[in-house]
Amino acid sequence: MNSLPVTADEIRTAAERIRGVAHRTPVMTSRSFDSVAGIRAFFKCENLQRGGAFKIRGAANFIFSIPKADLRRGVVAFSSGNHAQAVAIAAGVVNTPATVVMPSYAPQSKLAATRGYGAKVIEYGSGSEPREAIAARLAQESGATVVPPFDHSWTIAGQGTVALELLADYPDLDALLVPVGGGGLISGCAIGAKSIRPDIRIFGIEPAAANDTFLSKRAGRRVRIKQTDTIADGLRSPEPGELTFPVIEQLVEEIVLVSEEEIKSAVKFLLARLKILVEPSGAVGAAALLSGKLPPEVRTAGVVLSGGNIDLEQLAQF
Amino acid sequence: MNSLPVTADEIRTAAERIRGVAHRTPVMTSRSFDSVAGIRAFFKCENLQRGGAFKIRGAANFIFSIPKADLRRGVVAFSSGNHAQAVAIAAGVVNTPATVVMPSYAPQSKLAATRGYGAKVIEYGSGSEPREAIAARLAQESGATVVPPFDHSWTIAGQGTVALELLADYPDLDALLVPVGGGGLISGCAIGAKSIRPDIRIFGIEPAAANDTFLSKRAGRRVRIKQTDTIADGLRSPEPGELTFPVIEQLVEEIVLVSEEEIKSAVKFLLARLKILVEPSGAVGAAALLSGKLPPEVRTAGVVLSGGNIDLEQLAQF
Repeated sequence: MNSLPVTADEIRTAAERIRGVAHRTPVMTSRSFDSVAGIRAFFKCENLQRGGAFKIRGAANFIFSIPKADLRRGVVAFSSGNHAQAVAIAAGVVNTPATVVMPSYAPQSKLAATRGYGAKVIEYGSGSEPREAIAARLAQESGATVVPPFDHSWTIAGQGTVALELLADYPDLDALLVPVGGGGLISGCAIGAKSIRPDIRIFGIEPAAANDTFLSKRAGRRVRIKQTDTIADGLRSPEPGELTFPVIEQLVEEIVLVSEEEIKSAVKFLLARLKILVEPSGAVGAAALLSGKLPPEVRTAGVVLSGGNIDLEQLAQF
Repeated sequence: MNSLPVTADEIRTAAERIRGVAHRTPVMTSRSFDSVAGIRAFFKCENLQRGGAFKIRGAANFIFSIPKADLRRGVVAFSSGNHAQAVAIAAGVVNTPATVVMPSYAPQSKLAATRGYGAKVIEYGSGSEPREAIAARLAQESGATVVPPFDHSWTIAGQGTVALELLADYPDLDALLVPVGGGGLISGCAIGAKSIRPDIRIFGIEPAAANDTFLSKRAGRRVRIKQTDTIADGLRSPEPGELTFPVIEQLVEEIVLVSEEEIKSAVKFLLARLKILVEPSGAVGAAALLSGKLPPEVRTAGVVLSGGNIDLEQLAQF
């Protein structure tokens, strides 16, 4: 087995480090979901996480791991979504200045929320230099540390705390279903879950419209796809990470694809029946179960509902 | 003090009786809500209750209190809303036949859900005899017991278990905010909460468009208003109950009124920020806080979010 980017011990250390900053989120069950899906599902509600998504775990673990002398010079991140708010919150906790580079076309609610958490937001337009370049330049000028959204061991270790909590509560799950964007969440969760239950089956769930990890796993190498506009906006990353992909190759049994309509239906089901708001990216696991895409011998599944940040205007169109 | 329809001990007995049938619902908090409302709020999430509303507590306590010989002949209820589903669920638990009289104009989702829980649904149109009369006739013909929606001591005792749970978790609340329809929930909660914290302040929240209890409390007698069509469809009852009103007179400090717009805003705030779906009737307490209608010396408030059953089509119009 190739070496993995983080150990289970590092995930446990991350859990200690972010305690009191990230919430221990509840696990929900639903008779009506189970009866429709024909499975017992245990939903890990990261939509109820601080900042509305799991991202605070990785961002906090990363920022709290930065050496003090560097931390004083601040942090920089680029994100149009949940990572932006997570970095703003975590930086605020340790009182370090945060600058977040966000596209000017991002929803006003997200720009406002990131500013509301105390970060300086720099907007860029579609004609400007790439956001990575803007962030790198800012970092170089100020000495600030760039907080990567997924492809770093500190980030991955933070995201893995989701699985530690879920398996601590429900150690006997047959399978764990995790949304796949850049792969930070699933790689951390796979390492964490397998450390507790070596035989648990890990399924990654990806929108069919953003199937880079599906293609990569089939090809046995990282495949880059064209940018897509799946409604699962947190899962649009065009290729899996350098660190995350080897974990997915080794520990994830299968990447399951779901359609845009299946994602929308799952968001509506979770809202109407479980009474919780889950964003499209967060609902892909539920979508896979509701559309019967898991092997039939899977009887109990942990399902990571990774976030809940969706504009109500968008929701109204579902 | 006049005698109250139930004692705290009867509420505690109800809690034992319905254990395992009604969920012990979680209590949620939200930094963003508190910062907007200028108060620390503790939300008792009855929207996450079985059947999507607190009603299962009263219905189960009532049905489980019926003598066995009578129970065999079944139960009858009339309701266009959450009480219908609650009676269907509770009757199913003890395997007694349930008949629910519902208006044919009720949302298809509610008719289907009530049938789905195993009840026989009898629809009536606007031209037919009153639903109370239909239910009474059915009960007389079959020997079934009518399960009243609020004005019965067994029902009130069941609803009071909400407050016992909340105060067990958070005994130091300054105030408790409870939606007011027929008054079953608030009278049970007021008796339960005062038994633990005699000095807790109880506020009833009513839509301004269905202000029968507000008018009744001011007049010192039960006032009947014309049927209204507030969006808070669970709070449309035209007058407080014979048993519930004396409790409200004695134990409730004030009835606070909220507008239709304030209710809609609260539903949207709870959805966008807390990521939970609360029906309009369930959101009136949050609406009162967000619009600053509580006395300023109230610093911590328990807020009963009484239900989450709202059609997504209706929500999309908010």
